[in-house]
Amino acid sequence: MNGAHSLVKTLLAAGVDTCFANPGTSEMHFVAALDQIPGMHCVLGLQENVVTGMADGYYRIARKPACTLLHCGPGLANGLANLHNARRARSGIVNIVGDQATYHRPFDAPLTADTDGLARTVSAWVHTSTHSADLGQDAAMAVRAASAFPGQIASLILPANVSWDEGGVVAQPLPVPAPPAVDGQVIDGVARVLRQAGGKALILLSGAAVFAPAQALVWRLAQASGAAVLAEYGASHLQRGQGRMALERVPYGMEAAIKTLARFEHIILVGAKPPVGFFAYPGMPSTQYPDSAQLHVLTRPEQEPMTALQALVDALQAPQAAIPDAGPRPEAATGAPTPEGLARTVAALMPEGAIVSDESISYGRGFYPHTHAAAAHDWLHLAGGAIGDGMPVATGAAIGAGKQRRVINLQADGSAMYSLQSLWTQAREQLPVTTIVLNNSRYNILIGEYKGVGATPGATAMQMLDLGNPSICWVKLAGGMGVEAARATSMEECARLMRASFAQPGPFLIELII
Amino acid sequence: MNGAHSLVKTLLAAGVDTCFANPGTSEMHFVAALDQIPGMHCVLGLQENVVTGMADGYYRIARKPACTLLHCGPGLANGLANLHNARRARSGIVNIVGDQATYHRPFDAPLTADTDGLARTVSAWVHTSTHSADLGQDAAMAVRAASAFPGQIASLILPANVSWDEGGVVAQPLPVPAPPAVDGQVIDGVARVLRQAGGKALILLSGAAVFAPAQALVWRLAQASGAAVLAEYGASHLQRGQGRMALERVPYGMEAAIKTLARFEHIILVGAKPPVGFFAYPGMPSTQYPDSAQLHVLTRPEQEPMTALQALVDALQAPQAAIPDAGPRPEAATGAPTPEGLARTVAALMPEGAIVSDESISYGRGFYPHTHAAAAHDWLHLAGGAIGDGMPVATGAAIGAGKQRRVINLQADGSAMYSLQSLWTQAREQLPVTTIVLNNSRYNILIGEYKGVGATPGATAMQMLDLGNPSICWVKLAGGMGVEAARATSMEECARLMRASFAQPGPFLIELII
Repeated sequence: MNGAHSLVKTLLAAGVDTCFANPGTSEMHFVAALDQIPGMHCVLGLQENVVTGMADGYYRIARKPACTLLHCGPGLANGLANLHNARRARSGIVNIVGDQATYHRPFDAPLTADTDGLARTVSAWVHTSTHSADLGQDAAMAVRAASAFPGQIASLILPANVSWDEGGVVAQPLPVPAPPAVDGQVIDGVARVLRQAGGKALILLSGAAVFAPAQALVWRLAQASGAAVLAEYGASHLQRGQGRMALERVPYGMEAAIKTLARFEHIILVGAKPPVGFFAYPGMPSTQYPDSAQLHVLTRPEQEPMTALQALVDALQAPQAAIPDAGPRPEAATGAPTPEGLARTVAALMPEGAIVSDESISYGRGFYPHTHAAAAHDWLHLAGGAIGDGMPVATGAAIGAGKQRRVINLQADGSAMYSLQSLWTQAREQLPVTTIVLNNSRYNILIGEYKGVGATPGATAMQMLDLGNPSICWVKLAGGMGVEAARATSMEECARLMRASFAQPGPFLIELII
Repeated sequence: MNGAHSLVKTLLAAGVDTCFANPGTSEMHFVAALDQIPGMHCVLGLQENVVTGMADGYYRIARKPACTLLHCGPGLANGLANLHNARRARSGIVNIVGDQATYHRPFDAPLTADTDGLARTVSAWVHTSTHSADLGQDAAMAVRAASAFPGQIASLILPANVSWDEGGVVAQPLPVPAPPAVDGQVIDGVARVLRQAGGKALILLSGAAVFAPAQALVWRLAQASGAAVLAEYGASHLQRGQGRMALERVPYGMEAAIKTLARFEHIILVGAKPPVGFFAYPGMPSTQYPDSAQLHVLTRPEQEPMTALQALVDALQAPQAAIPDAGPRPEAATGAPTPEGLARTVAALMPEGAIVSDESISYGRGFYPHTHAAAAHDWLHLAGGAIGDGMPVATGAAIGAGKQRRVINLQADGSAMYSLQSLWTQAREQLPVTTIVLNNSRYNILIGEYKGVGATPGATAMQMLDLGNPSICWVKLAGGMGVEAARATSMEECARLMRASFAQPGPFLIELII
């Protein structure tokens, strides 16, 4: 058995059955092994940031890692931005990065690059396999690293000769270590804070603490203590809609965030980090909470929150309390497109169990209040701030859900141009993804930020901020990649197209002129 | 004066007057400075690999560095593959990478990444500016590093507060050190080899040694000594056509390369590296030259070749000899598209002074023999092997030529999908670029390489190698980005569209079904 065969069999044995791929010459023996050994669903992306973004979206929904297949240092480099986002989203991914044969590397052939150095910038675990006999074990370690709660990036660099040499040994899956436990003293301390200062306390959630089971406990804590509850701005994945809390996130804007957090004397972090600005601004602090606020860590991001939350509920003797009904669904909006109208229409029409991939950037800041009463759904955010993950995450999420759930991609146009090749994979795999491109023909967020400089953008600045010359036609772009598409200029048209798309199995793109 | 203003003024003083950009929030003060200080041509790319690839193409034609404007570590990451290619092409580029404010970095906000670590993987020079008062001098050093012969990647990391803080000082341009000289003993040694074993010697050229002035000297050396002459496979930029040598490159394929080089006892490297395989293959050597061959370094890549070549001509007393006429231009081909037919048609129709950006991959291996008799032109290759530079390099080359020369982009479809956003910039800047997408709906090079594994690709392998499901319509993709386009299925149609495109100023795309 060659190394590549041992690799594929080890991955399958560990439950990794989906491979997002863009192969090259040095991976041909791995591709052949994937071809010859049944069981791996191989999904081609036409640029590597699509590949890695799909792996992120897949993990968020399937809750188990897929592998990627990337070609040498430059192929990895192309996928780094979405690995950065996946790292911030705490998604588990096993990158398999093909590379020069070990003995060929010193010759510095053209594609030779610092693959290890590139991988280290985003990975919790990096290893270059050097012998076919070790490759199975190396792969088992990679899967274990990727599966560590709540998910990590593991990068296994695979020199071509390690793939093709004989002597491969299939490795059994390795047990994933349990997340670090939460000490009873921590529970006692947080319980005391909630008892004594509940009305001045904020419970700030992220990670698994914004999933529905945790929300049921957090709601009881809030009811018993009077504490407020928010999700971290960078939370990558909220479970929302009917039966879930009407959670808001800490606002993106620095001033709004500071204002929101000003009244809290205690901030209890449940999988969340202390809230800081996305960027620094002249004369503004880096942190968004008052200097006087006390921070209490109930769980770090790498600690499982359910046990701690249950212990806190017990310590507070928080009574049973059901999350209240969010009321009737909103009606679909009419008239000219507005952020509120779009949010209401999405809430009105989205099917039960839908997944929203939200890279709406400036247009989507206010979507939440109008979508609390939607059917139960998962809402995915850009956690790392590197634009270009909305479309790949939507694509991977659809695969992670076994094509059984409708994915709605609320997608700003500037970010959409970063990884538009996703649409081709959606067509190839016939995925149930409805993309709504919010076409305002500009980097609107930056025009807002520019004003913070204290000036109005002139001709040269607009040359770098405006996307309207030439205007981009998303209907043509989608059509060029085999995705049916149509333009909407009113909410009625948008709603009609959404309904039609939700009723058919494959992908569809709505270009909403805003 | 704030730091950003001192940066822009320093760049302009050093002759850097073109900025390929994709900005973000942390660069807004830099964008404002570019807006307020006249003189910089700012060119937006809708993904960073387009931005960096444009800077590469610009340098190859303008022979002076442009700057890039990239947003934080992830923005740099998106552009790394084409910086890898630019490094291999030995192009000079000044990257300006905006980043978190120095004091905000420890807070690990979402976009925070190992910007320095990422930059080091491709750069000869990396520096993070830390004070506004130093930024001008830092920029002058970056331009000097980028300008070092034959060109280098210099990356200046610009924290937001260094941009906005007052105290900026404009720096004067720094003198660029002369390239290391070639010792007389080296000249004598190579002259002796050519005298004694000319018929068994190969002069292997790359870099400036494949430009027309060097060719005039090399031709005399070859005539006087009987030595053969080839260009390195990885040569990024050949000057070709009427008045230039009918140079071939060392073949890409390992077996063909070994066969080509087998007869040489001496290989004289002029800016070239010892020829090695692009990849390793089982049972094949890494090097392409015979074990018995002697390698002689006339000039390293970072040494200027003209002085050494002239000294060698003098040492050999090589008589004056004009490069012979390449004969009449071929006629445009007719009938079904073939590689030879396309090459002949390009040679027949290309205007004097055209620039060819060639990322034709497997289809273009045999273009050279049929294009020697074309009008004088520049032919640009993918030097680093990371696909996705053909379109951005074409775009940047057109800007580097002041929009005064026709650029012909011979572009494989798989690679084209990597950086198709280039077309939008071509439309925005109204660049004279004619793109010929060679649509075979597959990663054809990989299907060839797969056969080397000793198997025929099955369904799963083809799922990763075939681009035909769904088929990509390049006419729609181009139209979606404002570039006029048409499909050709015969060489007559292709020739007609080429003629029409060459006669009008802006971009055009021909989708050639091959």
